[in-house]
Amino acid sequence: MTYCVGMKLNRGLVFMADTRTNAGVDNFSTTKKLFTWNVPGERAITLMTAGNLATTQAVISLLDERSKAPSDRSPTILQLPTMFGVAQLVGATLKEVIAESAPSGQNASSFRASIIVGGQIDGGEPRLFLIYPEGNFIEVTDDAPFFQIGETKYGKPIIVRAYEPDMTFEDAVRLLMVSFDSTIKANLSVGLPIDLQLYETDSFTCVEEPRITAETPNYQAITQAWSEALRAALDGLPPYVRDGR
Amino acid sequence: MTYCVGMKLNRGLVFMADTRTNAGVDNFSTTKKLFTWNVPGERAITLMTAGNLATTQAVISLLDERSKAPSDRSPTILQLPTMFGVAQLVGATLKEVIAESAPSGQNASSFRASIIVGGQIDGGEPRLFLIYPEGNFIEVTDDAPFFQIGETKYGKPIIVRAYEPDMTFEDAVRLLMVSFDSTIKANLSVGLPIDLQLYETDSFTCVEEPRITAETPNYQAITQAWSEALRAALDGLPPYVRDGR
Repeated sequence: MTYCVGMKLNRGLVFMADTRTNAGVDNFSTTKKLFTWNVPGERAITLMTAGNLATTQAVISLLDERSKAPSDRSPTILQLPTMFGVAQLVGATLKEVIAESAPSGQNASSFRASIIVGGQIDGGEPRLFLIYPEGNFIEVTDDAPFFQIGETKYGKPIIVRAYEPDMTFEDAVRLLMVSFDSTIKANLSVGLPIDLQLYETDSFTCVEEPRITAETPNYQAITQAWSEALRAALDGLPPYVRDGR
Repeated sequence: MTYCVGMKLNRGLVFMADTRTNAGVDNFSTTKKLFTWNVPGERAITLMTAGNLATTQAVISLLDERSKAPSDRSPTILQLPTMFGVAQLVGATLKEVIAESAPSGQNASSFRASIIVGGQIDGGEPRLFLIYPEGNFIEVTDDAPFFQIGETKYGKPIIVRAYEPDMTFEDAVRLLMVSFDSTIKANLSVGLPIDLQLYETDSFTCVEEPRITAETPNYQAITQAWSEALRAALDGLPPYVRDGR
């Protein structure tokens, strides 16, 4: 599996993705799942993938190749005027790859993938979309301000409780580190290192933070402190009072 | 879905089960998923179910009816000399019900269910088993001292971090309340009220604690304090230090 989170804040967007891929437990490796297309000052687009690796790599390659040879099929991801158009293009490309992978009549479910894509294009606001294998998509709202793909369940409760739209980037990254740590500790199919990008509204520049590994002191400090803080938080709760007999 | 946890402590066993059942979001109700067979002083057996409701109800009814009319097929759950035998009986009954529900050639996956069964029979130790739809089963070990069935992912990280074999019953219940609260807040298919049983080694008596509802002051106090403690724990972590740019 995979674990990726895209989050919309008042000040911009946060993207975090693990890097573990596996086909069975005896065949796993590290693969980047976070990709960017950036025209400084004009557009910054970040995309994260979960699902069948052949499918997601083909989608990225197609988006990339077509942006370099725009005569093939235009406008490309580097030319589209809006983020809505980018979401449509990514959705159409994903649907096309899945359809091509599945021989006619065969169930396409093995080839499925999901994508989070977000960013900003000059003239519009920062937007964040979740793209389904069918090619359609939804956008974040104030009520549902983040998207998760892959192994989403372990790390959801803490985000649900602690997300605030006016968080700083630093607080959002710390929250996501905790969410990722909970997932990594509970599920072998999600693993370090973690890729991280921050997008500040109207900057039109993707800022890629250093990859987070098990040796990153900041990550070690935060996850270690979180383990201790959780234990302390539990110990500090009111006691359960037995009523039975 | 469902969320049930069975946990083995040095001092005994803890069983906690939610009560929501649903077939689609427009058809849900409250159903007990925790059942006991108790011969005071001789045996105390607790069973929790997840999966197809028709399957699990049939399993419970069969175990129950056969214990009342032991001539039908003996020994029954009230006569078997060991918990291992009880696990075998429950597994065989589950497998039998699933096989009967699925017309020949039809995929039985819609009729599947999982069961946690534990307890103690005079002459043996307290034991706890997880029974698969295929009828086979595994037992808790020191390394894997608890079983979850149903929507297991949301509530797993906190148990993984905080379980200790020498916990008191009160601390274990508090930990499980937190695990259930995280699940309930993140997934509509798991809901209050919660059933709870505590089994103290060599007591041969199931102690059923009062059902936990949204109005239970102790549950309100613990989950409310947990929300606040989590926020405080996050705020108290070392900051994330941006390195980008």
